[in-house]
Amino acid sequence: MARWACRRRCDPTWRVSSSWLLSRLDYRLSIALYCLRMKRTPRKQRQAETRDPLFNQSVEKAFAILEAYGGERRALNLGEIAAAAGMTKSSAQRCTHTLERLGLLRRDARVKRWVLTPRTLSVAHAYLSGYALLEQATTHLIDLNQESGESVSLSEPDDTDMVFIARFPSHKRFFIHMPIGRRLPMYCTASGRAYLSALPAAEVQRILRRSALRQFTPTTLTDAAKILERIAAAREAGYEWSDQECYRGDVTIAAPILGDDGLPVGAINISAPTSRWTLTELRSKLSSVLLETARAASSGTASRLRA
Amino acid sequence: MARWACRRRCDPTWRVSSSWLLSRLDYRLSIALYCLRMKRTPRKQRQAETRDPLFNQSVEKAFAILEAYGGERRALNLGEIAAAAGMTKSSAQRCTHTLERLGLLRRDARVKRWVLTPRTLSVAHAYLSGYALLEQATTHLIDLNQESGESVSLSEPDDTDMVFIARFPSHKRFFIHMPIGRRLPMYCTASGRAYLSALPAAEVQRILRRSALRQFTPTTLTDAAKILERIAAAREAGYEWSDQECYRGDVTIAAPILGDDGLPVGAINISAPTSRWTLTELRSKLSSVLLETARAASSGTASRLRA
Repeated sequence: MARWACRRRCDPTWRVSSSWLLSRLDYRLSIALYCLRMKRTPRKQRQAETRDPLFNQSVEKAFAILEAYGGERRALNLGEIAAAAGMTKSSAQRCTHTLERLGLLRRDARVKRWVLTPRTLSVAHAYLSGYALLEQATTHLIDLNQESGESVSLSEPDDTDMVFIARFPSHKRFFIHMPIGRRLPMYCTASGRAYLSALPAAEVQRILRRSALRQFTPTTLTDAAKILERIAAAREAGYEWSDQECYRGDVTIAAPILGDDGLPVGAINISAPTSRWTLTELRSKLSSVLLETARAASSGTASRLRA
Repeated sequence: MARWACRRRCDPTWRVSSSWLLSRLDYRLSIALYCLRMKRTPRKQRQAETRDPLFNQSVEKAFAILEAYGGERRALNLGEIAAAAGMTKSSAQRCTHTLERLGLLRRDARVKRWVLTPRTLSVAHAYLSGYALLEQATTHLIDLNQESGESVSLSEPDDTDMVFIARFPSHKRFFIHMPIGRRLPMYCTASGRAYLSALPAAEVQRILRRSALRQFTPTTLTDAAKILERIAAAREAGYEWSDQECYRGDVTIAAPILGDDGLPVGAINISAPTSRWTLTELRSKLSSVLLETARAASSGTASRLRA
């Protein structure tokens, strides 16, 4: 009110009409809320915001909400959304409303919770459609899947992880369900270490330093020196292996896909259950066909991978 | 400046320090930009915003940018992003900056354009991981893929489209690359009409009224009466077919997947090239195994499809 009075006294041209007043109320409210937020926001966060005025937190929150889903979390209420995405309930409500209007969330009346819609796949489609590397690799991956009878995947690096962008499951059952977008750390996966084996040593060191070396199974490699040894061995052999380091009962071999500049752009892996294969068998029987596939996928369009 | 002067005159407690002044400049700027936007925003849009104050346009813009990619558009500059997503260049710049900081966009120094990163698959992963319908259907879809030797897909309804959520391509080559998230209209696809055939008639009418009946190929059905006839025939047969209605050289048969309440939740289809199959052969040889697969995928966990 102080500011209204202030403007009234100081600006002689100031005129008020009820409709104008109403149309500005929303604007005044947004400023009041902004001030309140400034007051409540911890100094550290406020400084970060000040440092990067172009960064939009609403967009960050929207993705945090969508990524809060997955696995067992298929239907969430407002409280759960707020908790999972680390925001207040009222902030979650505004964001949920926007995502619902965009067709990315849907309120399921039966369970009285919000669920994701198939429209959430549109961004993945934007990434995958027309992707030269994926299109060229697909025929080779299908051949490898047929020849090995086991699950075959294509993955790409993202920070310290490998992200699965294609998956051809085994028709022999007992496979690990691995939808696209699943990410696994580089340091303890065959595909990750295969990718690292084709990188310059300094870059490998940089990635490993940033990786949190966690133990997923009793056989997960977490010793940096041992990991580097394995990467060096993989550089010699052209492929890398993993003995149940992420999932018990799963042995894997993987080879890097190279771009025209000789640098790696991803990895192909064969993943098999210990009920059907020993790691030694997998390496002796399938490593050569794996290497052939990686070479075939590396040539030609791999150079056009992003453009 | 007028407002600063005003505040100075009217508020006797007002004190200014250079650091405080700097910290507030960003805030003042954001208000000035807001006012400018209010002035520039067309009245209609402003009214819509006023009607729905909870809707956040930044989130809408962020998704518009990500969805502007795909197909040939794999690397975009700011102008192209702005044009494709229907926004101003400065708005696109702010949004691009946020998406880059979130790891969803990456500036490719080689082509001097922004490209999507594999992190854009995270939302798809949230949708697909732990999805009971998909997990249960996968083994049946792999069997169907092996038995038919042709491409097999699982799709779900979204508004007037079917969205592909799983795809098992043929190992015999000449397949249409169909990444997950691809959407095709219900009215002219076997999977869409198969899904519609299991819906109540009123709902079918409602969906068809909202569909833009476009001609994709010379054989695309666009006559609403004929489409309804085909849906009625599919209801009798339990499956539907399509003769190159979306893509030339592609014949398809599809059957709906039903939830425990008898209502459809998606569709399974076999898609084959005309170089290997006539539609008559496809229907006579593979419709019974398609129906078996759809029945198997319908039972059990299909009822838990969302929860």
